[in-house]
Amino acid sequence: MDIILHPIGTVRNDHPPGSKPLTWQGVDSRLAFDPQWTEALSGLDGFSHAIVICYLHLIGLDRSPTYIRPQRRPEMPEIGFFGTRTPARPNPISSTVVEIVRRDRSVLHVRNLDMYDGTPILDIKPYLTRGECLPDAQEPDWVARLRVIHDRERQ
Amino acid sequence: MDIILHPIGTVRNDHPPGSKPLTWQGVDSRLAFDPQWTEALSGLDGFSHAIVICYLHLIGLDRSPTYIRPQRRPEMPEIGFFGTRTPARPNPISSTVVEIVRRDRSVLHVRNLDMYDGTPILDIKPYLTRGECLPDAQEPDWVARLRVIHDRERQ
Repeated sequence: MDIILHPIGTVRNDHPPGSKPLTWQGVDSRLAFDPQWTEALSGLDGFSHAIVICYLHLIGLDRSPTYIRPQRRPEMPEIGFFGTRTPARPNPISSTVVEIVRRDRSVLHVRNLDMYDGTPILDIKPYLTRGECLPDAQEPDWVARLRVIHDRERQ
Repeated sequence: MDIILHPIGTVRNDHPPGSKPLTWQGVDSRLAFDPQWTEALSGLDGFSHAIVICYLHLIGLDRSPTYIRPQRRPEMPEIGFFGTRTPARPNPISSTVVEIVRRDRSVLHVRNLDMYDGTPILDIKPYLTRGECLPDAQEPDWVARLRVIHDRERQ
């Protein structure tokens, strides 16, 4: 079964492919939607946050390795890739919660999107606290360890 | 630009298309992944919750109406469809946070998935509290009003 999708817009920011910032937290991006979607975006900016789904167009179509160490760090355990957020997955699509800064017609200004300039956008949805904010969700120990490493590197 | 994706599995539950339950909260589903992904799923069950991305295969390819009233309720305002979670969107893909109950090899038992039996699965990702749980996120007034209606109907 082939599922055929089409981009609805493109990510624009100061981070071309390969220029990964130390953290995507605080990175400003513009979501440049096709102008045909201007009216369909009205009302989205009544929410403070949105979920952006992108197509990770730079990921090769080679079969992903089954086990990976999160962020390729040797101190991390080997995990099946579906247990991680690696972009190398059978359908290379992302899901990121972003802050909505403002909308200028078909351009949505957002913060915290972890995508390079030029990434195709597949969908955007309002972020709903009920159902999507689960403060009691549990994570394996390696996630907390990875956060400690991140926070240290960003200082 | 055509983006071609392939299902990695199928949703199985007691709700065939058209048999929408009063609420999807508490509905048990089995995510039957292609057995080739069994090892790739290892480690995902170290998380209590996951994000499931499905292809809404029953949505027609006709152009979606630009403005809709959430859940077609007359007491709701007209919103551009990207400001709602309607399945009728240019790329009919969903994103749902589910509770992971247990994994039996290539079958993941989950709770709270809002998908009919037979829906193709595109991706599954671990739910990360940092970045994905934003208790201070703001929503427009109609969301709170819709929740009051829902809660009343479910009593």
